[in-house]
Amino acid sequence: MVKRFTILLLLCSLAFASSSEEGAIRRVLDDQVRAWNAHDLRGYMQGYWNSSELTFYSGGTVTRGWQPTLERYQKRYQGEGREMGALDFEILEVHVFSSDSAVVYGKWHLRMSDGKEPHGLFTLVLRRMPDGWRIVHDHTSAE
Amino acid sequence: MVKRFTILLLLCSLAFASSSEEGAIRRVLDDQVRAWNAHDLRGYMQGYWNSSELTFYSGGTVTRGWQPTLERYQKRYQGEGREMGALDFEILEVHVFSSDSAVVYGKWHLRMSDGKEPHGLFTLVLRRMPDGWRIVHDHTSAE
Repeated sequence: MVKRFTILLLLCSLAFASSSEEGAIRRVLDDQVRAWNAHDLRGYMQGYWNSSELTFYSGGTVTRGWQPTLERYQKRYQGEGREMGALDFEILEVHVFSSDSAVVYGKWHLRMSDGKEPHGLFTLVLRRMPDGWRIVHDHTSAE
Repeated sequence: MVKRFTILLLLCSLAFASSSEEGAIRRVLDDQVRAWNAHDLRGYMQGYWNSSELTFYSGGTVTRGWQPTLERYQKRYQGEGREMGALDFEILEVHVFSSDSAVVYGKWHLRMSDGKEPHGLFTLVLRRMPDGWRIVHDHTSAE
């Protein structure tokens, strides 16, 4: 009986740990959306692993490294005649695999001033770094 | 000294376990390519988790479940006037997170009889099931 209770307690604490990690991960993405909508691209980029090993896959192109990923965003959304628009994410699934690895699947949606609404899907791989959960791989595709 | 040796042994066995898991994962993808090139779509689909929870993201569309994913492939590659072509994968990264979770990033490339060569990127999430590693999530995008 005591053994069963111990196992139950262990399972509950594991479930709690996993749900609190999920909360921490969701906050990283919420912070990204908030930063984007304040036109703060560097703030948005805080969600990504600041490493030359960060990978960003989109439209058949592999971008490698935090700096090149920032520059890709700058070119596409802050370049001549470009705008950032209003971003929202719909998180479809979060799976925490271990204390330091997780994946998130979801939809992204932008609302531009000309009425256009580009949108698509993303798959994120996150690792827990000393300073918190960070996206180490982003595969984003557009409809 | 003995303690250090024990730790080294432990690290080596962990590294070995991870590399053997990576080998098992690569074999799943090799088997998929072989099946595809034999025009065996059901054989190709063996690499995917046979579950209604399998997710396949592509071109802005979420396909959910093994059977709908098979049907999507059948429509696109075995439908009227369609062909499967010759497939190859270039695996760029494999990360084994735990004894039962991993991700694979890579490039796909098809060579069609009319000379066209559709290609793009994929991000796969795999879990180790009782019958081996299976893709539980596939995000595929085309250039």
